[in-house]
Amino acid sequence: MPASAVPDIVVGRLPLYLRALTQMAASGKEITSSQELGERLGISSAQIRKDLSQFGEFGKQGTGYNIAYLVDQLRRILNINQVWDVVLIGVGDLGRAIAHYAGFVDRGYRVVAVYDNDPTKIGSQIGSFTVLDATRVASDVRTRNVGIAMLAVPAKDAQEVTDRLVEAGIRAILCYAPTSITVPRSVHVQYIDPVLHLQRMTYYMATS
Amino acid sequence: MPASAVPDIVVGRLPLYLRALTQMAASGKEITSSQELGERLGISSAQIRKDLSQFGEFGKQGTGYNIAYLVDQLRRILNINQVWDVVLIGVGDLGRAIAHYAGFVDRGYRVVAVYDNDPTKIGSQIGSFTVLDATRVASDVRTRNVGIAMLAVPAKDAQEVTDRLVEAGIRAILCYAPTSITVPRSVHVQYIDPVLHLQRMTYYMATS
Repeated sequence: MPASAVPDIVVGRLPLYLRALTQMAASGKEITSSQELGERLGISSAQIRKDLSQFGEFGKQGTGYNIAYLVDQLRRILNINQVWDVVLIGVGDLGRAIAHYAGFVDRGYRVVAVYDNDPTKIGSQIGSFTVLDATRVASDVRTRNVGIAMLAVPAKDAQEVTDRLVEAGIRAILCYAPTSITVPRSVHVQYIDPVLHLQRMTYYMATS
Repeated sequence: MPASAVPDIVVGRLPLYLRALTQMAASGKEITSSQELGERLGISSAQIRKDLSQFGEFGKQGTGYNIAYLVDQLRRILNINQVWDVVLIGVGDLGRAIAHYAGFVDRGYRVVAVYDNDPTKIGSQIGSFTVLDATRVASDVRTRNVGIAMLAVPAKDAQEVTDRLVEAGIRAILCYAPTSITVPRSVHVQYIDPVLHLQRMTYYMATS
């Protein structure tokens, strides 16, 4: 089945499988089953088998999955058998936390530069990064052929920064600003807004 | 149709609708259409009409949606016509950013206490919060009847803290730790891990 035919909701579960399998491998495990993986993730084993079967035959009935092989295949499917360069725009509290986060590079992403438009922040040091002037992010993205941006700017600035990134050829934006941004169809956007997740949970919770 | 029959993927879009409608209302708009909302969100107008129709009749053909009314109804559906108390565990870089974030309370959530297990952090001040000893989070959750926890602890500590919270009666966990946690079926869990979102996007991106 061509990749384009896989529902996005299935695609969204693959990183969860990869994360759990990577942790199993790190703890020395070599073989797992859809049952074991499912219990760990709170997803049914049938769902896991069905999801993975869309991409090939990764396990044999009764013998389970070879974890290293499945990790390798999932990394290939998710296009992280390379490392993607990422720029970060906005170094308020959240941006600083992202800049300090050490968990990107093992998993396929490398923050290559951080930007802000606040003159008191430009030139300051955050870990190994010197904060750059946000006015140059578009030319840097173009010159260095950066594919991905993380946006940790205030909601009011998000669309304007997005427009500049899109014009510079950005292909994906992870938006931490609590607002929706408008992009051409060819640009991928994912949102991280804790309140969206909280509301999705309280929907199911009778008021206390 | 009873609420339990609404697919979770539809539930997941309601907070996006609410966020966009709230922003429209803040900018003085009174009426919108599924077309306008859809363009803003990159979701088809048919999808929006179908999603909303699962909960009732919110607009009339040709006259559009009354924004204030729809905001009110969505807040009721998402159970945020009350404010939910939330505890935050872990005040590393990310936890500090969450503690400082001012965007929760307008949208239904109030951080009531923050915790850490690091003796050098316990007793320190983060904004208006004094960091409390994490050993008392379970008794606080029980005493104050707190429904929701945000977990910004290292991956290796996440399950142990989760177990204590569950035992104390927590009903929902927003997990920022980059790992899966295991909870009883009655407890809701959502994950915030930027890498999961990045991988979901690079799946679609031909390698550069």
